[in-house]
Amino acid sequence: MRHFDMEMNDLKSRLVEMAGLVQQMLKATIDGLVSRDLKLSETVFAHEKEVNVQEIVVDDKCLKLIALNQPVGADLRFITSAMRINSDLERMADEAVNISEIALDLIAYPELKPLIDIPKMANIVQQMVADSIKAFNTNDVELANTVLEKDDEVDDLRDIVFKDLKVYMTESNDPQTIQRAVDLIMVARSIERIGDHATNISEDVIFMVHGKDIRHPKTFK
Amino acid sequence: MRHFDMEMNDLKSRLVEMAGLVQQMLKATIDGLVSRDLKLSETVFAHEKEVNVQEIVVDDKCLKLIALNQPVGADLRFITSAMRINSDLERMADEAVNISEIALDLIAYPELKPLIDIPKMANIVQQMVADSIKAFNTNDVELANTVLEKDDEVDDLRDIVFKDLKVYMTESNDPQTIQRAVDLIMVARSIERIGDHATNISEDVIFMVHGKDIRHPKTFK
Repeated sequence: MRHFDMEMNDLKSRLVEMAGLVQQMLKATIDGLVSRDLKLSETVFAHEKEVNVQEIVVDDKCLKLIALNQPVGADLRFITSAMRINSDLERMADEAVNISEIALDLIAYPELKPLIDIPKMANIVQQMVADSIKAFNTNDVELANTVLEKDDEVDDLRDIVFKDLKVYMTESNDPQTIQRAVDLIMVARSIERIGDHATNISEDVIFMVHGKDIRHPKTFK
Repeated sequence: MRHFDMEMNDLKSRLVEMAGLVQQMLKATIDGLVSRDLKLSETVFAHEKEVNVQEIVVDDKCLKLIALNQPVGADLRFITSAMRINSDLERMADEAVNISEIALDLIAYPELKPLIDIPKMANIVQQMVADSIKAFNTNDVELANTVLEKDDEVDDLRDIVFKDLKVYMTESNDPQTIQRAVDLIMVARSIERIGDHATNISEDVIFMVHGKDIRHPKTFK
């Protein structure tokens, strides 16, 4: 195997490994929120530091790969997609941290009746993340497309969550309840964002494989 | 001037122009929100389409610049930074659209007493955006650093806005008031995000000029 191919494989492995870490963070932050498990929520902060280090290492590697090998076509698309995916993974990790920070606040108070559709929303988004990474790892455009299709489902669930929480706030004028409901709105927003990043990754996979930029499809209609 | 240098200048001009459009969108969305001006808020949607087109054009141009010229060092850093800044500008435009969508909802209801510190927060963030772009256009690391310093100020204002709105919700159990307060929380969050993107651009400027990745400073301490 050529040295360049080995380096490209290494880049891919690093991203897949980093994605594994991010998926672990997402699982821990959601499980910590649902089961009110302080320790689980806290693991997320340590992992974030690792992700941040990886982000810089991967970007640096991408720049060196371009500078030393002057790739074109599919190779160049792979490297610039890797830079983008790297950034999306790091932002997912940030959102996991946001959720854990809120979870730690929430654990201090008695449980607010429902997490409503938040766990359901989180399940779909975790699947989107897993599928987008698998699609990247196996160049699977079909799988990437299934991720894009789930985005609307997540937006609909977010609307339901927002609506339910607003009703809940209206029926209560207890400051603690309002605080917790606002917290859960922010959690739903973070989960939605993680889904957006999985969508970005899937669009990158399609671009990488087909060389076709499918972002903003309505723009050119 | 070499053809390559002309192309690099063109890339820079395109980004600065795109940034001008995004700044116009930010001004229109905030002014529309503050003055309850339906038409102003709506201009934002048309501009978003232009920004989306520009994003794809710029990315395509960056890939071609790399493939055809095989740049290294500062030139390569400039092009990859341009790709990143392109993405941050597009995400700012998305946030401007989010704010305008909420503004159109809010206009339908009687005015909620205060926008509290939201206009103040928006002023600081608009200045951050302007300065980050100016820093990019003039390679001004000092100016880029002033943008980074303002990020904490914005976070503090966001905390104050959230706190004030929660008090407001607690004192009212009117569904419309709760709806509007949640809307304003989302607006504050979007403004904060726009500030985050200006911070990203400033970090890119520093990387571009110095070749030093200053993201996640605490990671390596």
